[in-house]
Amino acid sequence: MIPVDDRGLLLGDGLFETMLAVDGRMEHWAAHWARLSAGCATLGLPLPDEFQTRVACTNALATALLNKGRAAVRLTLTAGSGGRGLERPAAITARVFVTVASAPDAVLAPAKLVTSHVRRNEGSPASRLKSLAYLDNVLARREALAAGGDEALMLNNRGEPACASAANIFWIIGGKLVTPALECGVLAGTTRARVIEQAGRIGTEVVEGRFTPEALRGCDGAFITNSLIGLRAISRLDGASLPAHRLFGAIAAAL
Amino acid sequence: MIPVDDRGLLLGDGLFETMLAVDGRMEHWAAHWARLSAGCATLGLPLPDEFQTRVACTNALATALLNKGRAAVRLTLTAGSGGRGLERPAAITARVFVTVASAPDAVLAPAKLVTSHVRRNEGSPASRLKSLAYLDNVLARREALAAGGDEALMLNNRGEPACASAANIFWIIGGKLVTPALECGVLAGTTRARVIEQAGRIGTEVVEGRFTPEALRGCDGAFITNSLIGLRAISRLDGASLPAHRLFGAIAAAL
Repeated sequence: MIPVDDRGLLLGDGLFETMLAVDGRMEHWAAHWARLSAGCATLGLPLPDEFQTRVACTNALATALLNKGRAAVRLTLTAGSGGRGLERPAAITARVFVTVASAPDAVLAPAKLVTSHVRRNEGSPASRLKSLAYLDNVLARREALAAGGDEALMLNNRGEPACASAANIFWIIGGKLVTPALECGVLAGTTRARVIEQAGRIGTEVVEGRFTPEALRGCDGAFITNSLIGLRAISRLDGASLPAHRLFGAIAAAL
Repeated sequence: MIPVDDRGLLLGDGLFETMLAVDGRMEHWAAHWARLSAGCATLGLPLPDEFQTRVACTNALATALLNKGRAAVRLTLTAGSGGRGLERPAAITARVFVTVASAPDAVLAPAKLVTSHVRRNEGSPASRLKSLAYLDNVLARREALAAGGDEALMLNNRGEPACASAANIFWIIGGKLVTPALECGVLAGTTRARVIEQAGRIGTEVVEGRFTPEALRGCDGAFITNSLIGLRAISRLDGASLPAHRLFGAIAAAL
């Protein structure tokens, strides 16, 4: 239970990480912790002790009997209680808690994406963070489901593809791997970073930049990524088929 | 206390209203309730019973011994518990709670505004709502305070003035009252609506639209509005003086 004066609850003032755990052990802990650390620096929030936090995650898995097989661990950090309205108290005591759940299947059927009317806010630093202010993503997902899709494609206010509601997006054109740059209003996904690294290792050029939706629609294959699903192919975008590409399997295998 | 699986806490999935109470009675309840109702419709959240909610507000004031003089009542509505990740449960049970605090002074010294680097997301319906995803506003206010100001001027991604971090903004040019249109990514403020109505009654033309920061910088006077402060003059913007204008007092008196 959390007090009603918590700033995460009242204002979205905080961050989270969602991690895959396998047999009670968090995958890619260092990458998640590094991102949380960077987010705390951006928001001006104190970072809790790493070791104690990791133990809290492990204990939560054990308590929920989710320390066998795949599980999802969510680590939430809020700016704590206090302050007046938007203004934080002089001394911030962060509030940290861990929730766990069963994880989605390791291999999901290809996703059907629907372009949302809800735009990413490329003009806010929070658009590059996994912040508690995730309402735009909730609305985008809701719109996609209502339209018969599995996931949303979110454009930014310039009309450029940015990401899915809970995943980064990649596509393939002419043998190159393409993904929106972080400046498009894109979360610095931990799986996104690993995909870029592994693509380099297998000799695939990666292009990060600003693109049009038409570039994505004309691609040779596309997929989304996050910590829980890994890589998931996109089969349709707004009802139109997207082709499958061999690079999808090659990168999935390299991860 | 609120459960850790609350969607307002985890995702900013919810709304709030901040109301001025005087001697235990909420001012402009009908306007706040209408806005909350419209917000629930936009987000797809169930609306609680109006009478019971109003009684909860009144009781909270009495319990906190804040039913004499001015007080601030915050009504928070979240999408409740449940669902998986971004997706809501099939049946939503909203969670509603009330917090109260002493109100700021009725007449504050003129505000010094500082233009924030954090942009309003004009491309999201949430930018027109008082949603729990208020982190951008927290960051904008923090930036303004760090720069020696009292409040932030927030532009949208097109570079147009939208609002302050916790207030709407008006300025005066050639005897007309000017304010950014809601499509700029502006909360439909209850005091904003009353100012527009009262300006009409005293024969002042009101222009809602899209403007440049230069238009604001060259104004004949400016002020911000919200439910707790009413009208507050702006004396400086990014260090430059803004003139005082007689219309400020005339509208404040008409309210």
